[in-house]
Amino acid sequence: MSDELAAVFATPDVIRALDDDALVAAMLSVESALGAACGAAGLIPAAAAAEIEERCASVEISPAELAAGALAHATPVVPLLERLRAAVSPPHREYLHFGATSQDILDTAGCLLAARALELVLADLAATADALAQLASAHAGTVQMGRTLLQQARPTTFGLVCAGWLAALDGARADLLDVRERLAVQLGGPVGTREEYGPAGAVVAADMARRLGLADPGMPWHTDRQRIGALAGAAQLVGGALGSIARTVALLASTEIGEVAEAQPGGSSAMPHKRNPARATLVLACVHQLAGPAGTLLAGLAVEEQRSAGVWQAELPALRHLLRLLAGAAAHARALVTGLRVDTARMRDNLGSVVPSQILLDSAQALVDAALAAHPGGAP
Amino acid sequence: MSDELAAVFATPDVIRALDDDALVAAMLSVESALGAACGAAGLIPAAAAAEIEERCASVEISPAELAAGALAHATPVVPLLERLRAAVSPPHREYLHFGATSQDILDTAGCLLAARALELVLADLAATADALAQLASAHAGTVQMGRTLLQQARPTTFGLVCAGWLAALDGARADLLDVRERLAVQLGGPVGTREEYGPAGAVVAADMARRLGLADPGMPWHTDRQRIGALAGAAQLVGGALGSIARTVALLASTEIGEVAEAQPGGSSAMPHKRNPARATLVLACVHQLAGPAGTLLAGLAVEEQRSAGVWQAELPALRHLLRLLAGAAAHARALVTGLRVDTARMRDNLGSVVPSQILLDSAQALVDAALAAHPGGAP
Amino acid sequence: MSDELAAVFATPDVIRALDDDALVAAMLSVESALGAACGAAGLIPAAAAAEIEERCASVEISPAELAAGALAHATPVVPLLERLRAAVSPPHREYLHFGATSQDILDTAGCLLAARALELVLADLAATADALAQLASAHAGTVQMGRTLLQQARPTTFGLVCAGWLAALDGARADLLDVRERLAVQLGGPVGTREEYGPAGAVVAADMARRLGLADPGMPWHTDRQRIGALAGAAQLVGGALGSIARTVALLASTEIGEVAEAQPGGSSAMPHKRNPARATLVLACVHQLAGPAGTLLAGLAVEEQRSAGVWQAELPALRHLLRLLAGAAAHARALVTGLRVDTARMRDNLGSVVPSQILLDSAQALVDAALAAHPGGAP
Amino acid sequence: MSDELAAVFATPDVIRALDDDALVAAMLSVESALGAACGAAGLIPAAAAAEIEERCASVEISPAELAAGALAHATPVVPLLERLRAAVSPPHREYLHFGATSQDILDTAGCLLAARALELVLADLAATADALAQLASAHAGTVQMGRTLLQQARPTTFGLVCAGWLAALDGARADLLDVRERLAVQLGGPVGTREEYGPAGAVVAADMARRLGLADPGMPWHTDRQRIGALAGAAQLVGGALGSIARTVALLASTEIGEVAEAQPGGSSAMPHKRNPARATLVLACVHQLAGPAGTLLAGLAVEEQRSAGVWQAELPALRHLLRLLAGAAAHARALVTGLRVDTARMRDNLGSVVPSQILLDSAQALVDAALAAHPGGAP
Repeated sequence: MSDELAAVFATPDVIRALDDDALVAAMLSVESALGAACGAAGLIPAAAAAEIEERCASVEISPAELAAGALAHATPVVPLLERLRAAVSPPHREYLHFGATSQDILDTAGCLLAARALELVLADLAATADALAQLASAHAGTVQMGRTLLQQARPTTFGLVCAGWLAALDGARADLLDVRERLAVQLGGPVGTREEYGPAGAVVAADMARRLGLADPGMPWHTDRQRIGALAGAAQLVGGALGSIARTVALLASTEIGEVAEAQPGGSSAMPHKRNPARATLVLACVHQLAGPAGTLLAGLAVEEQRSAGVWQAELPALRHLLRLLAGAAAHARALVTGLRVDTARMRDNLGSVVPSQILLDSAQALVDAALAAHPGGAP
Repeated sequence: MSDELAAVFATPDVIRALDDDALVAAMLSVESALGAACGAAGLIPAAAAAEIEERCASVEISPAELAAGALAHATPVVPLLERLRAAVSPPHREYLHFGATSQDILDTAGCLLAARALELVLADLAATADALAQLASAHAGTVQMGRTLLQQARPTTFGLVCAGWLAALDGARADLLDVRERLAVQLGGPVGTREEYGPAGAVVAADMARRLGLADPGMPWHTDRQRIGALAGAAQLVGGALGSIARTVALLASTEIGEVAEAQPGGSSAMPHKRNPARATLVLACVHQLAGPAGTLLAGLAVEEQRSAGVWQAELPALRHLLRLLAGAAAHARALVTGLRVDTARMRDNLGSVVPSQILLDSAQALVDAALAAHPGGAP
Repeated sequence: MSDELAAVFATPDVIRALDDDALVAAMLSVESALGAACGAAGLIPAAAAAEIEERCASVEISPAELAAGALAHATPVVPLLERLRAAVSPPHREYLHFGATSQDILDTAGCLLAARALELVLADLAATADALAQLASAHAGTVQMGRTLLQQARPTTFGLVCAGWLAALDGARADLLDVRERLAVQLGGPVGTREEYGPAGAVVAADMARRLGLADPGMPWHTDRQRIGALAGAAQLVGGALGSIARTVALLASTEIGEVAEAQPGGSSAMPHKRNPARATLVLACVHQLAGPAGTLLAGLAVEEQRSAGVWQAELPALRHLLRLLAGAAAHARALVTGLRVDTARMRDNLGSVVPSQILLDSAQALVDAALAAHPGGAP
Repeated sequence: MSDELAAVFATPDVIRALDDDALVAAMLSVESALGAACGAAGLIPAAAAAEIEERCASVEISPAELAAGALAHATPVVPLLERLRAAVSPPHREYLHFGATSQDILDTAGCLLAARALELVLADLAATADALAQLASAHAGTVQMGRTLLQQARPTTFGLVCAGWLAALDGARADLLDVRERLAVQLGGPVGTREEYGPAGAVVAADMARRLGLADPGMPWHTDRQRIGALAGAAQLVGGALGSIARTVALLASTEIGEVAEAQPGGSSAMPHKRNPARATLVLACVHQLAGPAGTLLAGLAVEEQRSAGVWQAELPALRHLLRLLAGAAAHARALVTGLRVDTARMRDNLGSVVPSQILLDSAQALVDAALAAHPGGAP
């Protein structure tokens, strides 16, 4: 699939972090960590564990090799194991994938991908928030006409507007960080009992979590998709925070208002004079799409018996889609906010005859100070 | 509107807690708390504050009186104030709704309604979780065939199944409690600057929060809908936890499996022998509908300028709809779980020739113990 | 439930057409038509059919009486029949609800409600479209600045803008009319075989369809929810057509552009000078909510076996919600469009130094003429 | 992006038909047809038209070359034209993209992609429907227990069940064919006036439509996204029809019911005995995801002014996503249905002591005959 243009609604980095090569690598990391943890717990021979770790690190499996098997079995883990078994020497082969089920591998690998993607997202969000903090600080006293229902209402300050965006974004970032920390190892075995690990089950799960940098869930979560649903919710909260900024910037950048402009507006194929709010548009395009995969994930929380048929299998593609869009929104928002041009003269002009009071300035400054004080990045 | 039958997808209590009478009462409570807080802060005369509080407590305003004005102005606050102004004596009249905007009143009233509805929901969820804890404890050693992709797989225990439901529900309850605690007073004035309150803005907001039992948001949140979005997300997490139970119970209660039954199965208009899983069906019907209002709320997070046109106005009806459905799901789930009949003989029969190991029993017991230890209600 | 304020997102007429009283009346109409058709086909005695028809017309059943039974059985048909049976004399009682299942009654009643609601909607849409045709005709030559990505681009005419709205709305109306005509009688019996009617099944269904003014579906559609899904899709198409108008009107009515205004702008509780685009806001608020119930209906198309547990039961409340919102959007759009004030001087001013060409005028006129020629209501 | 595994939720053919190479090729086809039509209409020199056609056919542009420009301008048309202009000789260069805007090219190219994808989908659906017709015919008299709310109810026949699926699928196919035929050329110029083409506008659009095998829309549809919304709705109707089949097959294939089986059930990584309903699972996984992009498209119908910022740009990625999932669902359903194994002995066993009547058989046969008579593929 040639989909370079789709990168417009994502970023090259996040696409790499989430593509099939990354998924195969993550699945191998999980099999490796499982082998190592089972070796450490004495469930499998140390030599077997060592060979499994070594092979998982060195085997080269291309996603294309797995496609036919993934189709036949509705999971890529079955063909992955076929390939991996062939790479491990016969005496140790039986210890591969010890006690695990496909979902253990795929859920854990999905969390690994998500954790890496969220790192990228969180970095862009932190930079965006810091830039908002700077704008809030610099423009705490820049009076601007406030508008409600698209009508001029009463004056505010542009710094206070930015402080409001900052508060919302900082809140959403905290939620996203929280769900990042819930991303967990999955270890349940065929029906989630951990029977295969006997009394060592909890130890193996905890050891895998440590090795992979994920949380120890305490219980298998084959049918408890709360952490995935919480991620979907948090992604939409971030999307809302970024979308408010982009929507407002696009309006304030309109020809008739003209109070802000993008650093590098987009051009038009037909109208050389156009200065399109390209970054704001791309943020909105990403955010508008977020509800799709988020809805798929949230509608998929109610699952049946010990492994759902159809709903769970839809989760990983929806999760990757969600994370790509989220990364796209975050990256475009960062570019938008860090490069924003503020036309203070136009803001003054648009006030017309309205004269802002000192009380307004003091009140706005107090709220800006409150938002900056709460900002994890510190005041600029 | 005669909509008694809609109560099937809600509860009578939550319907009362969220209906228009409750909304009018909540708006009056907000105007009262605003008046009291402004009086305490010295922004308005103490006598005015006292009369406002008294009138808000005694005035009788029927929702029907507000309908025409709500239509004309796209907000019920304008006609509410017309009625309320008429009830306050002329010298004090001007101090009503001091410095506030419609959205201040409606957002705070919405949070009051939500807080009351969530109390009802949380009580039903606590009872459901406690009943799950009892089932988990009682059936920790009741072996049952595990099923994945609707195929018999390997044995588990029914207690472990219940422990998994409990862990998911306890997680979702914690999230819901967290969003309940974020429900906040709104105080921003026309464009969110609090200019009208001068240096007393933060004090007035904090005082109102104390009087109304809501959180002090620190900043106006006219365009920061994160707390509403977080509620929508948490509601879906609860829905997912309950939906997993209901979906599985409906399957386990199927004629061919027959391992559980509802305490009072539903009848059929055509087939006297039918034992329909009526409560499970109603849980699923409520949960299936939750994505509608939740999606409306989450898609409405990106708002423009100082007050959005169209998206914000859709929030309150969606919020009430969401809470009704959530309460319906919780109440039906409570009835379902507290009355569940477990047919252990049938569970044994369905195992066929499969003999469960002691290791399975130990492993399941350990996981059940972990879930019970984490259960806020304590082990039964 | 006191929900008068919810009428803002609906209309009083459609609320009446869809409330529980209307649902009970519709269910009685269906039982009556079923009795009459079975009598005419010789399946039940003529005297029984006559008494059933008479009793269904005269019995008074309040929705509140059905609520407890609806809850116990997850369908209101079971308690309705209990009440109705008591009203029919013993020898004829057994012929009531002849061969039918709850879903037969409820699906048909739902289609009756939908058909009545769509009549109201289609009338408002026709009036809106006619008003757009008049605006298109009157302003075919009123030059206005075109705007893309919120930037001034090149001139168009306001009449052409209206013609574009008209074309979209006329297309959506045609789709809505089409789904209205698909609304059908349901007759399948317990599992959709029509066994109970023997060779007369098709005749009974066709006769019921004729008596009730609905389509004859040819086959039972217990598990074929296509017609409901198509209605959900068509409602969103209408919503999109109306939403484009409202969103654009709100922007064009903004203080800085000021090219159009509502006939009766809304007021503000805090700012006497505000002229809020109240009707556009209400259209957008209704349209924004439409995706909720529409998504519920569309996600509910995949149903299992001979009657789904949970998804089907969610259909009727979602359908009623959808139709209320659709009616609200249509009514507000009608008020918005029929009362729209066009400020041609401001449109001219906003062109600045741009001089429109005669070719533009001719081109716009040709497109306006094309839209008017295709408009079912005829050119104004 | 390496995404071979995503093919599990699509098909290799549809991925190729919708990838970036296909998009670039489609954009070049549109520029070519535009040049040819403008040449034929005398708007540009014949030699320029000829060179444009020739260059569009021979130029090689890789999607990767366009990515940076697509990002900068929020549309790939701007960089495509830069590349294309360089390939056309200076005297003819100015006639490229004559009078058009980016959206004209991208909307038309999107319709070309959709038309090709729908051909693939419709072929799989036709084969699925024909296989259902054969099953309906072959099993019209195969008695099976009917099940409602997952409880055994009354007997039906498996042929009638298949006939019900056929009727729903044939209806959905008709809707999908209808929206395929609405896919249209876009030609509006910068703000949708066709001013640039003068009196020849309608002729150029009709000629392009003929050359590209798309419909002539009559009017520019920059802000009338009805045809895209209708496609989203129809895709979900198809998804519902296929999902009902898959959900029911998965249940009937469950260990305890065992009445049908897939031709090639999937295996498990942990349980060699498992016979997973892999194809049914994949159908459900595709269908479950459909609501995401369909919702994005339907929520994007309400657009502002002459070109929307954010919502329109999200349309093409959502459209491609939708079509991939739809093709995946259709291909998996075809494999599922054409290979379905029916265990008539088990169906008989599951009836227990229930003895089906001749009237049931006659009634079922009559309904099967009705569905087969209405089937466009003819009775088998």
